[in-house]
Amino acid sequence: MADAERIQLAHGGGGQLTGELVRDVILPALGAGGSQAAEGLTDAAVLEVPPGRLAFTTDSYVVQPLEFPGGDIGKLAVCGTVNDLAVEGARPLALSLGLVVQEGLEIALLRRVLESAGRAAAEAGVAIATGDTKVVERTALDGMVMNTAGVGVVSEKARLGFDRIAAGDRVVLSGPPGEHGLAVMCRREGLSLATELLSDCAALHELTAGLIERLGGAVRFLRDPTRGGVAATLVETAEGAKRDVEIVEAAIPVNRTAKSAAEMLGLDLLTVANEGKLVAVVADDAAEDARALLAESPLAARAAVIGTVGETADVPCVEMETEIGGRRIVQMPYGEELPRIC
Amino acid sequence: MADAERIQLAHGGGGQLTGELVRDVILPALGAGGSQAAEGLTDAAVLEVPPGRLAFTTDSYVVQPLEFPGGDIGKLAVCGTVNDLAVEGARPLALSLGLVVQEGLEIALLRRVLESAGRAAAEAGVAIATGDTKVVERTALDGMVMNTAGVGVVSEKARLGFDRIAAGDRVVLSGPPGEHGLAVMCRREGLSLATELLSDCAALHELTAGLIERLGGAVRFLRDPTRGGVAATLVETAEGAKRDVEIVEAAIPVNRTAKSAAEMLGLDLLTVANEGKLVAVVADDAAEDARALLAESPLAARAAVIGTVGETADVPCVEMETEIGGRRIVQMPYGEELPRIC
Repeated sequence: MADAERIQLAHGGGGQLTGELVRDVILPALGAGGSQAAEGLTDAAVLEVPPGRLAFTTDSYVVQPLEFPGGDIGKLAVCGTVNDLAVEGARPLALSLGLVVQEGLEIALLRRVLESAGRAAAEAGVAIATGDTKVVERTALDGMVMNTAGVGVVSEKARLGFDRIAAGDRVVLSGPPGEHGLAVMCRREGLSLATELLSDCAALHELTAGLIERLGGAVRFLRDPTRGGVAATLVETAEGAKRDVEIVEAAIPVNRTAKSAAEMLGLDLLTVANEGKLVAVVADDAAEDARALLAESPLAARAAVIGTVGETADVPCVEMETEIGGRRIVQMPYGEELPRIC
Repeated sequence: MADAERIQLAHGGGGQLTGELVRDVILPALGAGGSQAAEGLTDAAVLEVPPGRLAFTTDSYVVQPLEFPGGDIGKLAVCGTVNDLAVEGARPLALSLGLVVQEGLEIALLRRVLESAGRAAAEAGVAIATGDTKVVERTALDGMVMNTAGVGVVSEKARLGFDRIAAGDRVVLSGPPGEHGLAVMCRREGLSLATELLSDCAALHELTAGLIERLGGAVRFLRDPTRGGVAATLVETAEGAKRDVEIVEAAIPVNRTAKSAAEMLGLDLLTVANEGKLVAVVADDAAEDARALLAESPLAARAAVIGTVGETADVPCVEMETEIGGRRIVQMPYGEELPRIC
């Protein structure tokens, strides 16, 4: 099937053409990451699972454009679901991949994003074990929707949850916020910056596994701040723990290009989506170890302790000490500042 | 959130409005089936899993219209994924639910299809354990895409696979083919029939569990003949087993309304999608037991032995002895006879 060709409705019919698309395009593109998918892509995969707790998650990806600086929908769909498992303290075991493709989509583009998904899966050591492909009319969808679900084995050392968060715990952020959302927006709006801004899209399971392995129960809670950004994650953490949280603006690492882009677009960096950042709540006496451990990885070289958990509160609040010495409330974003960012 | 309201882009932003949609519409609508989702719908669920083999599957649903006689996209998304687990010999444990919704969709419609998904999950005894919701512009999608992934525990008694199929094995079909695809097409095309045709959309895990429990290794292979219909399933079975298969047209149960509809639309009943039928390959001496066991359920009251597995073949072929005594080749449908049928 030549790359110049385009997807036809009949590619989704479950017949010969579907079989050809799966055999000639999808499986070869997924490559190593999809090697276990050879039998499974139209049906269920059977996995050998050790006894214990299993994490199970799903996300659909609707990012526009499908390719952006630092990533694409395929890499995003793998990393995003790996990260949802990772923040539950789980080692990713297998992913599913559900494609809904618009009639007329270039097969070359489909191939590129699937190759990217396959590479990301291989790098993360996770199999794309089962899948499904549907095709809809060109008037019914622009581009592609990709859904991944994932299963992972929860570490026996993981003791994570809102109820584990205590007064005095520290909040660690693995790097500068906003890179993913702003990279996508700049590409979409055709904004050019002095320095190219890349999405931070990356799999975080090694970072989280390292934290849990080394610090055990001192790691209270992990979350990847995607839609709604660091602000939404902090507010959800405060509300979940029923505790105030205080952060210090001067401690938050900043990507200057992202900051310029946010200013141009009138956005708050803290509310912009990330796809390769981690918010960790850790015991006070383990906070510096957690920061240093994260900073050993290129994915989190600029990790910083940015805040502290406070006392219990009926109406929990996230407050920020600003760089000019004032204080402001960090709020849950209301709605959609950046549509179709992930 | 009143039913008269419509989905806004901001409902997908990950902020306050997303939280309200999940809390006020999605979780209440999923009801009993979604009760475990209260914490999980934005993140990963943690499941306790017994040791052994785990089945893992996914499907995306793009059916149009979203509601049709006998079902809707919610019921379909639950039953379809339950069935993909069931035919692997697995007891369904948990489902994920990924929604991609068009801006402007009526909240009342969203509520109805989610209530239907919740009822189907509760009836199947499976939890909707984790989920995700995205909203895209009204120009980017018509209606809704629903993705479910599922995990299930494979029965220790299940010995299923193409390699288990032997010469002389019999092919059992659980009921008349084509009801789902034709019910959807008749609704879509505005065709009215003397008798209303209902989709057969149903969860089959109790049928498959019963077969495996009672007949063990005499059950060689199970499949639910969805897209591409019974024809595609038989051809895949023949190709997978590398054996010829012969079926007898007179033995195939027929729904007269479906047959009339197929004739009006110029379709072959054997190539039309089913969503509540089972094709089982069983040992010859267990075939009548399998048929009788299936027929005890209202879901398979008209189960019939329709064919026989033949010798190994380099180019395996499915042949049908026709009602007028001729023979014809049953072929894999080429492409998309019925777009957006599931």
